[in-house]
Amino acid sequence: MAQPTFPEPGLSRAVVPVEAKDLRIDAGRLMARINALAEINRQGDGSCNRLALTDPDRQARDLVVQWMEAAGLEVRVDRIGNIIGATAHDGDLAPVMTGSHIDTVATGGRFDGVLGVVAGLEVLQTLRDAGVVPARPMAVAVFTNEEGVRYQPDMMGSLVFAGALDLDEALAAKSHDGTLLGEELQRIGYGGDAPCGAPRPWAYVELHIEQGPVLDRLGEVLGAVEDLQGISWQEVIFRGVSNHAGTTPMNLRRDAGVCAAEVATFVRGLALRMGRSQVATVGRIEFSPNLVNVIPREARLSIDLRNTDEGLLREAEGEVASFIQAVAVREGVSVEVRPLVRTEPVRFDESVVSLIEQVSVDLGQSSRRMTSGAGHDAQMVAQIAPAAMIFVPSLDGVSHNPREDTRVEHLEIGANVLLHTMLRLADDSV
Amino acid sequence: MAQPTFPEPGLSRAVVPVEAKDLRIDAGRLMARINALAEINRQGDGSCNRLALTDPDRQARDLVVQWMEAAGLEVRVDRIGNIIGATAHDGDLAPVMTGSHIDTVATGGRFDGVLGVVAGLEVLQTLRDAGVVPARPMAVAVFTNEEGVRYQPDMMGSLVFAGALDLDEALAAKSHDGTLLGEELQRIGYGGDAPCGAPRPWAYVELHIEQGPVLDRLGEVLGAVEDLQGISWQEVIFRGVSNHAGTTPMNLRRDAGVCAAEVATFVRGLALRMGRSQVATVGRIEFSPNLVNVIPREARLSIDLRNTDEGLLREAEGEVASFIQAVAVREGVSVEVRPLVRTEPVRFDESVVSLIEQVSVDLGQSSRRMTSGAGHDAQMVAQIAPAAMIFVPSLDGVSHNPREDTRVEHLEIGANVLLHTMLRLADDSV
Repeated sequence: MAQPTFPEPGLSRAVVPVEAKDLRIDAGRLMARINALAEINRQGDGSCNRLALTDPDRQARDLVVQWMEAAGLEVRVDRIGNIIGATAHDGDLAPVMTGSHIDTVATGGRFDGVLGVVAGLEVLQTLRDAGVVPARPMAVAVFTNEEGVRYQPDMMGSLVFAGALDLDEALAAKSHDGTLLGEELQRIGYGGDAPCGAPRPWAYVELHIEQGPVLDRLGEVLGAVEDLQGISWQEVIFRGVSNHAGTTPMNLRRDAGVCAAEVATFVRGLALRMGRSQVATVGRIEFSPNLVNVIPREARLSIDLRNTDEGLLREAEGEVASFIQAVAVREGVSVEVRPLVRTEPVRFDESVVSLIEQVSVDLGQSSRRMTSGAGHDAQMVAQIAPAAMIFVPSLDGVSHNPREDTRVEHLEIGANVLLHTMLRLADDSV
Repeated sequence: MAQPTFPEPGLSRAVVPVEAKDLRIDAGRLMARINALAEINRQGDGSCNRLALTDPDRQARDLVVQWMEAAGLEVRVDRIGNIIGATAHDGDLAPVMTGSHIDTVATGGRFDGVLGVVAGLEVLQTLRDAGVVPARPMAVAVFTNEEGVRYQPDMMGSLVFAGALDLDEALAAKSHDGTLLGEELQRIGYGGDAPCGAPRPWAYVELHIEQGPVLDRLGEVLGAVEDLQGISWQEVIFRGVSNHAGTTPMNLRRDAGVCAAEVATFVRGLALRMGRSQVATVGRIEFSPNLVNVIPREARLSIDLRNTDEGLLREAEGEVASFIQAVAVREGVSVEVRPLVRTEPVRFDESVVSLIEQVSVDLGQSSRRMTSGAGHDAQMVAQIAPAAMIFVPSLDGVSHNPREDTRVEHLEIGANVLLHTMLRLADDSV
């Protein structure tokens, strides 16, 4: 299939029906659906807990499928459990696709992922209600296990969809709880029979909350996301000798815990020193036996490094690796480093990013070109189709947290930019 | 009662029967008793599990009482459950006392505490078998709940014995398992009616494994323990803001985890910088939510500081406190510091320490003056009587662990030094 080329911003032909320009999504319905999904397994602190392929994930999937069917979409579930709702369309033109995910972390907010799915539904339902039939079909996808909490890797559904992860390998992913992803998929009734990767999209645009503080701090409403950080996750396990905290002189210690602490301290300093897009986080740490007066025998920590530049990301990884080895040698402990996740930085399609900017202007909004600090399904789909993302602000940058919030008017603007970006993609480039 | 003064080493009058100089404990019986206690509730990995006032503790107590009675001792159980076996003696002279504990941590070794009790029994039984009657009575004590795993504070029996903890407060100690110490004491039949603190010892000597690596590393067999570290335990809780690890720029983070890591790193550096007896350990750390890609909202860590000098220990505490506040301010997180345990350093009685050294020489052994890094019942008894301790090596310094071990010949030497130190104390100072 030939790759589409998009018109330069401002050069768009006015082939959409005149009335389509004035179409707007239904913000009330959008919010009602976001809130309906949030109520599933909502926790006492207000957080959403729908880990992938649990019963709450099934309930959320059932609800979305019901909405898709009510909107007249043809629903297919592929073998990794991705749900794709598409408009019925004569012929076999590749669809303009949007999508996201509805699984959450254990203490998630209402908007992460859900916004993209529900706004995609809005787009398709708004067009249908207005009787607008674009030149190309349109589709909205719910990708399986984007968060990667229960099964690794994250962004699994879109990864398999893009052909970048083998289906059988994904189905064999094993959780800490002992379950296999493939079995859980069957158990909740979402092991579909549609082939993965179809329909291959003509273009892909995903609306998402920023999950970071940049737009909110700058007072901007829209982000035209042009690239995405490369991500490096690793687990480091130091193994030393457990001993009495009072009787063991400092020079005779083989303290796994202090190694972990020094690495976490180093990682923070490295990010500050490198600056620019480099971020670094130690989010997880565990000591064993984890007692006040016992020198830790074992210490595990996670290291999350991100950069938009692959060379700089490798440089950061190299510095961390050297430090880990040096601290292990000094302390006389052994160390094991396990790579967990590694994605290269992604550059989105320039013509789609420009189109998002143009549509924003047409809707009377400014936008800001920006980098995504989080991984998203769009980065996987970008491997097989021109893709980009639209961001709306997260209040205080809070995400993966019950306090995650975005103003309703910003959600609405984002969904309308999605609507018109998809419309232009569907009609301009046939 | 006047405090005893002990003769200078080498000036001892030879008032013990001539044949008493050649007395030696029965190493076979010593080992058999250590092993008999170790078999009670022994775990699959070989560790001893006799938490204070559980059924296994009762079984161990029953066995020791049986041995005391077989050795012709008068057994009394006081109101905090301390068991004291004393030689029958005319008159009301204060006894020379030894003792230790038979409770263990959850994964304890065979020797911690048990050695002191069983060796004390050996001393009294050896004298009785040889028909040697020292000028003063002798006693061996089993102190309740030295380890402090199930009920806090630790060293509770000796603390009450020394009058430094109110009996009713001790009896009201509540365990994580919901039980009250006083009720458990009654349940296992060791809530005695003897008053606590009697008999007040003329002097106290305790034999214990070092639980650290110093003697083993130096190839020494005997430690004459002259002092004991002051202990400062605190829990520090940083509370920041949980946020996405990819999307939150470094300068906008309020990362509780990195604060904990920096404190742990600082604490290590502080101990190295202060040197001498200063040791410092972060044995426990916990992040929340503890996820790879989430900036920790909360981080807890324990800090264990020990020094033989109270002024230096306070200095260490002060430096740590300043660093904690500085790091919290820089990161924009709140911090709470909870004191957990605080004991001042203890200096043992110089004349008893010297006597241990002299007895070692007389038995053809060298000894090393040293500091105890662990807390022991002797430090509590030291508040009401001249006291000191004898250490024997722990192989590789391992303790609180099923691999805890001491060579049989070292146990035997230690018990013989205990025997002759007690004999000299009983006869030299009437």
